[in-house]
Amino acid sequence: MAPLSPTARTTLGRLAEKGRTDRAELHALLDTALVAHVGLDAGGYPLVLPTAFAVDLDGPDRDGTLYIHGSTAARWINAARGAKVCVTVTEVDGLVAARSGFESSMNYRTAVVLGEARVVEDADERQHALDLMVDHMVPGRAATIRRPTRKELAATQVLAVPLHEASLKVRQGGPDDEDDDVADNPWGGHIPLYRIAGAPVGDEGSRGPVPDDVRRRAEQLGASVEADS
Amino acid sequence: MAPLSPTARTTLGRLAEKGRTDRAELHALLDTALVAHVGLDAGGYPLVLPTAFAVDLDGPDRDGTLYIHGSTAARWINAARGAKVCVTVTEVDGLVAARSGFESSMNYRTAVVLGEARVVEDADERQHALDLMVDHMVPGRAATIRRPTRKELAATQVLAVPLHEASLKVRQGGPDDEDDDVADNPWGGHIPLYRIAGAPVGDEGSRGPVPDDVRRRAEQLGASVEADS
Repeated sequence: MAPLSPTARTTLGRLAEKGRTDRAELHALLDTALVAHVGLDAGGYPLVLPTAFAVDLDGPDRDGTLYIHGSTAARWINAARGAKVCVTVTEVDGLVAARSGFESSMNYRTAVVLGEARVVEDADERQHALDLMVDHMVPGRAATIRRPTRKELAATQVLAVPLHEASLKVRQGGPDDEDDDVADNPWGGHIPLYRIAGAPVGDEGSRGPVPDDVRRRAEQLGASVEADS
Repeated sequence: MAPLSPTARTTLGRLAEKGRTDRAELHALLDTALVAHVGLDAGGYPLVLPTAFAVDLDGPDRDGTLYIHGSTAARWINAARGAKVCVTVTEVDGLVAARSGFESSMNYRTAVVLGEARVVEDADERQHALDLMVDHMVPGRAATIRRPTRKELAATQVLAVPLHEASLKVRQGGPDDEDDDVADNPWGGHIPLYRIAGAPVGDEGSRGPVPDDVRRRAEQLGASVEADS
């Protein structure tokens, strides 16, 4: 497995001390995060849109494959077909309350993946990618829901980006204040931020208990779920 | 004030029913969210990076001004100077556990702002923008910390994007399942997601209580803060 970052484009310049070269950390972030921001050239101007994603470390690309998908009617995904894209995944972990504006910051983890978005044509790879995306949101759910119809599959585009050319940047902890500022101002620190889930909410057609896959996911994200809710 | 979206580029195509045209909703999202993803052409390929931001609704642009900043040494912000950029701000509000993969989704709010990034040269506008960015993270904090030095200001670039050409897309609630799927599968719904704060953590140079600005911000984000912590 190649170390991060194999090219000049993904070798961090500034704040390189925040760069990480451990692919396991990249994979952990991509496993935790829910949304990717995909950037592309929309025809003379850059466009950035949020989208669901999933990673297959055993995918066809050497260092794993990142999948995104969208409607065949969506302009952005048609612009992304076969094009250079940037897929950026960020988790915000805290607010850094420094003693100067210059050192004020946020704690975060950010992965930047650059590559060409390959249109996934193979039916098995497409279905696997779609299942991975459902399971990325609610692990195990792909096996519990209705299989896609031909019409649904025809309306869905799946794109694959190799997980090869990637960088990971992480900031954590308190501020990097100057000694003089610490002497002058008695407090600097950070506010940790977390994502938590509330209890699952059934729609108006729901009857019976929250299914196990949904309950487990909500609990994993910190929700308290009544057994009979 | 112009309604959203004034141009064809920001007029939503697909899922237009999720589009909003109320600028107050856009402003509320930009007020809540902490991070923007900025997309630009990095020289033949798109690049998307997360960054802090702030909005000045009374800024020099007709519908308000969105500010971002970065180090004068950062490659991305030099590529953004005077260039077309896309600033996308997303909050994830839930996981939608549908009865099919096709209807599986997330709840979210996304603002997409397109425009040219103007380099802010005026000293007063620069300082105001930097204060807004500090206060966006911790309201009131800009007034409580050390003012920037000349050296710090020289190392910081501030860019302004007009809040004119913008779109807002919102998804909320449960799945849009087909009637047949609801009949076949007794449960569909969503898992609400929230961001919450933990108690502020002072750095090793801290002595004395958490200052009011930091305590209020943590409490506003759901933290329980001891008066003497």
